[in-house]
Amino acid sequence: MIVSIINIGDELLIGQVVNTNASKMSRMLVESGMEVHRVYTVGDNGRDIAAAIKEAVAGSDAVLLTGGLGPTKDDITKHVLCELFDSKLYENSEALDNVKRIFKARGFELTPINRQQSWVPECCEMINNDVGTAPAMLFDIGCSQMQSWFPEVEVSPSVSKVLVSMPGVPSEMEYLMRHRIIPCLKLRFETEAIVNKNVIVHGIGESFLSDLIEPWELALPSNIKLAYLPDAGMVKLRLTARGSSEAQLREQIAKEMVGLYDLAGQYIVGEDVESLPELVACQFVQAGVTLATAESCTGGAIATCLTALPGASEYFKGGIVAYSNEVKQSALGVGADTLHCHGAVSEATVREMAEGARCRLGADYAVATSGIAGPGGGTDSKPVGTVWMAVASPTETEARLFHFNGQRQQIINRTVHSACAWLLHAVKKK
Amino acid sequence: MIVSIINIGDELLIGQVVNTNASKMSRMLVESGMEVHRVYTVGDNGRDIAAAIKEAVAGSDAVLLTGGLGPTKDDITKHVLCELFDSKLYENSEALDNVKRIFKARGFELTPINRQQSWVPECCEMINNDVGTAPAMLFDIGCSQMQSWFPEVEVSPSVSKVLVSMPGVPSEMEYLMRHRIIPCLKLRFETEAIVNKNVIVHGIGESFLSDLIEPWELALPSNIKLAYLPDAGMVKLRLTARGSSEAQLREQIAKEMVGLYDLAGQYIVGEDVESLPELVACQFVQAGVTLATAESCTGGAIATCLTALPGASEYFKGGIVAYSNEVKQSALGVGADTLHCHGAVSEATVREMAEGARCRLGADYAVATSGIAGPGGGTDSKPVGTVWMAVASPTETEARLFHFNGQRQQIINRTVHSACAWLLHAVKKK
Repeated sequence: MIVSIINIGDELLIGQVVNTNASKMSRMLVESGMEVHRVYTVGDNGRDIAAAIKEAVAGSDAVLLTGGLGPTKDDITKHVLCELFDSKLYENSEALDNVKRIFKARGFELTPINRQQSWVPECCEMINNDVGTAPAMLFDIGCSQMQSWFPEVEVSPSVSKVLVSMPGVPSEMEYLMRHRIIPCLKLRFETEAIVNKNVIVHGIGESFLSDLIEPWELALPSNIKLAYLPDAGMVKLRLTARGSSEAQLREQIAKEMVGLYDLAGQYIVGEDVESLPELVACQFVQAGVTLATAESCTGGAIATCLTALPGASEYFKGGIVAYSNEVKQSALGVGADTLHCHGAVSEATVREMAEGARCRLGADYAVATSGIAGPGGGTDSKPVGTVWMAVASPTETEARLFHFNGQRQQIINRTVHSACAWLLHAVKKK
Repeated sequence: MIVSIINIGDELLIGQVVNTNASKMSRMLVESGMEVHRVYTVGDNGRDIAAAIKEAVAGSDAVLLTGGLGPTKDDITKHVLCELFDSKLYENSEALDNVKRIFKARGFELTPINRQQSWVPECCEMINNDVGTAPAMLFDIGCSQMQSWFPEVEVSPSVSKVLVSMPGVPSEMEYLMRHRIIPCLKLRFETEAIVNKNVIVHGIGESFLSDLIEPWELALPSNIKLAYLPDAGMVKLRLTARGSSEAQLREQIAKEMVGLYDLAGQYIVGEDVESLPELVACQFVQAGVTLATAESCTGGAIATCLTALPGASEYFKGGIVAYSNEVKQSALGVGADTLHCHGAVSEATVREMAEGARCRLGADYAVATSGIAGPGGGTDSKPVGTVWMAVASPTETEARLFHFNGQRQQIINRTVHSACAWLLHAVKKK
C-alpha cells in the first residue's frame, strides 16, 4: 500500500523548524510494511493545502496530514478539510471530554477557543488523542468523492482511500501514529509481514564498514534490505525483511546474522536496541553494577543521555559536570599540581577525574571526559576535537586520547558515543 | 518571487535520514527575500522526479533540486533532466578540470565512472562546484518549454523560470546555495527586503498567549507575519516583515514591539535569540555572574543545554547530577534528615541542593531540580510531573513547586525551560 505525507506549517517552509515528523512517520510506516511515495511540505495556506491533498490522494492509498490543528488563527487545516469534503464542524462530545480532562489535569480554565479543539468535520471519524487536545480525524475517500475532485478522470467504483489529519506536535503525532493510525491503516489495507533488526556498530567508519561487509550484503536475499544509519561515530545497521510470515522472517534474519558476525563481529556492540545509551543501561543493570560520570567537554551530555531513559536510577548514581578547573578540584579532587603541570585536557587530569567520581559518588564504574569541543580553545598541540577520556573500574583506571572531527555538537555527540562504547567494553571484561 | 524545493533520495522516504537540506535551503531563501511555496521529497525514481519537477515548475518562479547526482547507479537526476529538456549529456571541460583537481588533491586515481561527474546536459548552464565533484546545473525555462510540458494550459510568451539541480551532500548544497545559486537567483528575479524578529515568551501557554495578544495580532500591518513556535513550556514568537527597505522594516517592527510589550510584557523573557539557554548565557555574561547546577530529575539536561553553546565557560562553573540520594548527600551536602523527613522531591531538599551547589561549586547563582519525570515513580501525593525547583542567589534561596505534563522527555524539557526562565528573572532582579 502506498502512503503520502503532507506536513503543514509556515515554520517548516521558512526553515525555522527541521521537519523531523516526515522522517519519523516514514520510518514508522516503512516498518509497518507500507511504502511512502512522496512527502509534501506546505505552508498554512488553504489553497496550497487543498492542492497538495488532491495531488497526494491521486497517487496514494492513504494520505497522512500533520499540523495546522492548534487553537490559533494560523491553524486552518480543519476548515480546509470541511471545504474539501463539503462538511461542517460540530462539537464532538468525546473529544470535548478529552479536552476538559486535559485542562482539568493542568489546572487551567477551559476557554471558548480551547473548546473549539473538540470541533471536527461531520463526515470524519474522530480519533481520540490521549496525549493532547487536538483529535486526529480519518476521512474515507470513495468513488464519488474522487469523481468530484477529479471530474476529468475515470474513477473505479471500488476505489477506497483514506485521509488522516493529525496534530504536528511530534510527541502527539508519534503517539497517535503508533497507537491509533497505523493499526487502523493495517486493518483497512493489506500489508506485508515485516521484521526489523537493529545492530549497533562502533569503532569503524561507515564506508570502511560497507567495504568490510560488502560480500555479505550482496548475498542477502532479495526480501531483506540493509540500511546504514550513521550517527556521531556509531553506525546502526538495520535489516528489514518482508514476507508473508513473521516467524519465517525472524528465522531468516537470524541465519543472516551469523555471516555478519563472521565479518564484523569485533565492531558489533549490541543488537535489538535503538541506541548506545540503551545498551549501557541494559548491561549495567544486568551486571548489577553502578556508574558515575565526570564530564568536562561533554558538559553533562553523557549523564543526560543515560537519564533520558526511564529506570536509570537502577544503575546511575550521578555525575559531576566539572566545567571549570575549580570544580575539577573541589568536586572531583583533581590535584592543583596535575592541572598546573598537565593542563585540564590531559591524561593525568581525566584519570583523576574518573577516579574522583568513582570514589566520591560511590559507584563501581566511572567515566570522565576532558577535551576541546570548539569552536574556540584549540591550539597546535591540542586542536579542536582533542578529547581525553578515562574509565575507572573496581580494578583499574584506563585513559585514552581521541581526535574527533566536526562542529561542537558533533564532537560532543561523538564523545558521548565513544564513552558509552567503552563502558560496554569495560563491563563485559568483568 | 516564489521558489519550490525538491529533495531527491530513497533514504529520505524510508525515514533513514532527516531532511535537513529542506530547512537549511528554506531559511537561506527566506533570508534572501524569497518565498518558499512547497517542498517535495521524492525517491530515486525517474517518473516521480519528473512529475514533481513539472508540478513544482507550474507553481513557482524557480525550482531547486537536490540529490541524485552521485556516480552510482541509483543516481538518475541528470538522465531525468535530459529527458525533460530533450537534451544530451556532454563532457564539460571546466567541470572535468574540477573533478581532476579534486581527485588529485585527495590522492585518488580518476576512474571512468568518476569522470562522468563532469557530464552535464547540453542545454544547461554548468555551475562549478568548488567543494565537490558534481556540478550544479541551471536550466532556463521559457514559453516553449512550458508549452511542451503543459500543452493544455495557455502560457504567457514572457514567462521565464529557472530550474537548478545541485548535489544533496549538505556541505556542498550549502556552499553552492550561498555562493552561486542565491546570487544568481537575485540577479534574475526581484526580491523583497526581509527582517525577522524573535521574541521568547515563557510562563503562558500558546492558546492563552494567542488570546492575550489577539487585538495586537489582528492590527499588524499586512506585510508583517506572526508565527507561534511553542517548545516545552515556552513560545518563540517570530515576526517576519517584508518590504522594499530593510531600515524601514526594522523601524516598523520596533514600533509594533511596543504594542506587544503592552499586552504581554510580563511574559517576554528576551528578544533576538533562538532559545532560552542562549538568553541565560547572554544575561549571566553581561551581569558578570557565575552559575552552577544541581540536577536530579533533569539528569544533567540543564548543564548540557547551557554547555552546548560555545563560550559557556565564561559563566558556567559546573554542576552536580545528583541522581541518587547518596550523591545528594555526599556531593551537595543535603542532610540525611532532610531526605528522611521530607523525601528527595521536596522543598527542603531542593533548597539544600541549590545552596550546596552554589557553595561547593563556588558560583554566584545555582539552580536545583528534583522531581518525578516518570513513567514510573509517581504517587497520589506526588504524581509524575511533580518537580521542585530552587534558585540560590547571593542574597536568598527561593523554592517553587511545578506540575508538568507530558512524557518523560517533555517533563525534562519543560523543567529545563522553567529553570532558564527563572534564572533570567533572578539575575534581572539583581
